[in-house]
Order: sequence, then structure tokens, then C-alpha cells
Amino acid sequence: MTTPRRDTYTPETLLSVAVQVFNQRGYDGTSMEHLSKAAGISKSSIYHHVSGKEELLKRAVSRALDGLFATLEEPAAREGQAVERLEHVVRRMVEVLISELPYVTLLLRVRGNTATERWALERRRDFDHRVAELLKAAAADGDVRPDVEVRLATRLVFGMINSIVEWYRPEARGASGREVADAVVQLVFSGLRRAA
Amino acid sequence: MTTPRRDTYTPETLLSVAVQVFNQRGYDGTSMEHLSKAAGISKSSIYHHVSGKEELLKRAVSRALDGLFATLEEPAAREGQAVERLEHVVRRMVEVLISELPYVTLLLRVRGNTATERWALERRRDFDHRVAELLKAAAADGDVRPDVEVRLATRLVFGMINSIVEWYRPEARGASGREVADAVVQLVFSGLRRAA
Repeated sequence: MTTPRRDTYTPETLLSVAVQVFNQRGYDGTSMEHLSKAAGISKSSIYHHVSGKEELLKRAVSRALDGLFATLEEPAAREGQAVERLEHVVRRMVEVLISELPYVTLLLRVRGNTATERWALERRRDFDHRVAELLKAAAADGDVRPDVEVRLATRLVFGMINSIVEWYRPEARGASGREVADAVVQLVFSGLRRAA
Repeated sequence: MTTPRRDTYTPETLLSVAVQVFNQRGYDGTSMEHLSKAAGISKSSIYHHVSGKEELLKRAVSRALDGLFATLEEPAAREGQAVERLEHVVRRMVEVLISELPYVTLLLRVRGNTATERWALERRRDFDHRVAELLKAAAADGDVRPDVEVRLATRLVFGMINSIVEWYRPEARGASGREVADAVVQLVFSGLRRAA
């Protein structure tokens, strides 16, 4: 017999366990039973903290979304030339993705089967739209190449940034969040080719 | 009662049905029963064409891998400055991804649970390695920015290209394969920012 661990969880620490399990098994594939096992506390102890797994999902994706949206409110995202604001937001997106890696990973895997997932998808679309608007403004200023189509470029840039969750492992002591952000900004704004 | 369709499949057309089902349900989640239903022919008719679902997987991912590796053998990938060869390969990767969309999608979702999947993952790593070598050669020639770290840049460029399978829909009459390839090449080599 295993002795159930005493419930020393806060909503915050319980959330970090739940996000791990969601990312491992998928949200649909996770039951309260799985969460209870992973946390080492009973289901009723979990219900003491939250109403159920959908509330945990909502809190987890909110954390990712709040982090991303907060970058749009930073002074460097609100003042100055659109192209500079865009560069700031791209850099900060990468930094938030890496500092909130499990939460953003979960957000990017959301499918839309529940009200919370649909809400998360809609907020993601809002965010993408705000970034696309910045790119449009930069194009209107004449600061981006005129031959780049805004919608396509937005998708490709998001594709590059979002792909980071597939390979970035903080424990691997590879590139730091800042190094990855630098590399993304260099690639997206100046490209690989050395200026002639 | 439904009348079973007469088996007019060739290995080629059966493959295209199988790839659709694999992409929809996941390879692990697909049974011969699912394939038989989707193709509208009996399981024994399928066994007339192939030894089982793993052979279908092997043929499908081979088609994607052969398409990708063939780009490395094209004259423009073999002759000239490394940076030009790299640009050619990046463009052709996007074009192959779009022309063989379901096959490359399947390849990118392979997990490694069977021998065929592990073989596919190894060939993917070989391909990534060949592209990284081209980037290294371009850096040695002084044709790419010295501040870009090769491994990181390779991952980000592959991330951008591979993300195309998540949103590109040929039937949506959006950008053509060539337009997407142009946009990727512009972004990867020159970046968004208008040259001063």
C-alpha cells in the first residue's frame, strides 16, 4: 500500500502538474484519475482546489495567453515605428513561449472540443490578428519588403516561432531563451544572407 | 445492405486512401478494418495489394522522403555557391511539401513506435543533416550572417517550412505552391525588413 501524499498543493503547483499530464496524454485523454495519480493526492483533494479538469485547462491556457497578450501592452510594442514594434513583439513572443513553455505548448495543441478550447482558439486568433495588423502597418510605412504578402508572412513567422515548442528543451543547456529570440529576430527581419 | 465496391484499386490509389486515413486517425489508431471501410473493399482485397498497414506506411513515407532527397540531386543543388544551392533546396523542399502534401504530413507525424517509423525518422534526420551541411558550407564561404548559429537556424527554418502542413489547403485557392515557396525563400534569405 502506498500512503497518499499529504495535500500540500496550491492551485499554482497543482496547475503545473496538470499541464504536464495534459501535454503528455493530450487533454481529451486525461481523466481526473490520471491527474490524481500524477499529483499523488485524491480526486476529492483536487476538487477542493478546482471544479474539474476544464478549469485546470482554462487556467493553464489563460496563463499562456495572458503572457502573450501582455507583450502587446509593453511600451516598445505601443510606441514608435510599426516595424520596431513588430520586432519587439516577435522577440517577446519567443521569450514568453520559452519562459512559459509547457503552458504555450498546451495552448498550441488545443483542438476545440470544449467551450474552453474554443475560447482559447478564438483568443489565439485575436492575438495572431493583432500581430498581422502590426505587419500591415509596417508595410504601409514602407518598412517591409513590398513583395511579401502579409497573411502568408504572418503564417510563416508564427510557424517558425510555434515550432520551437517541438524541440526546445530547457534542461538540455542548449541555446537560452534570449539566444533563440535573437536568432528568430535575425532570421525574420534580416534573413540568413549576409548583406552585400 | 451495402454492395461492396468492386476492387478497382491499384497500389497507387489504395495508398492515397490509406494516407488520408492515417493522417485523420493517426497511424497507431488505424486498423485494417478502418482502411477496408475507407477504401470500400474487403480486407482480403487489401492484402492482395500489400502485406499490411506497415507496408502502406512505408510506401507513403518513402514517397515523401524520395521527393525530398531528390531535390538534393538536382543540378542547382549540386553546383555553384553553397548559399545558392541552399536557396534552391529550401525552395524545392517547400514545393515538394505542397505537391506531396498528405505524404509529407504523414512523414512529419511519424512517432517511432514501429521499425518503419524509426527508419523514417532516421532518414528525416539524414535529410536535415544534409541541409545543415549546406548552411555550414554557405557560412564557411562568408555568404551568411556570421551571427547566426547553424544548428539553431536549421531548426527554425525547418520549423517554418514544416508548419506549412498545418495550414496549407490546396483546395482553398489561396497561395500556390510557387507563391509559398517564394515567400519562404524571401523570408529565410532576406528577411521582412526592406533593405535600407
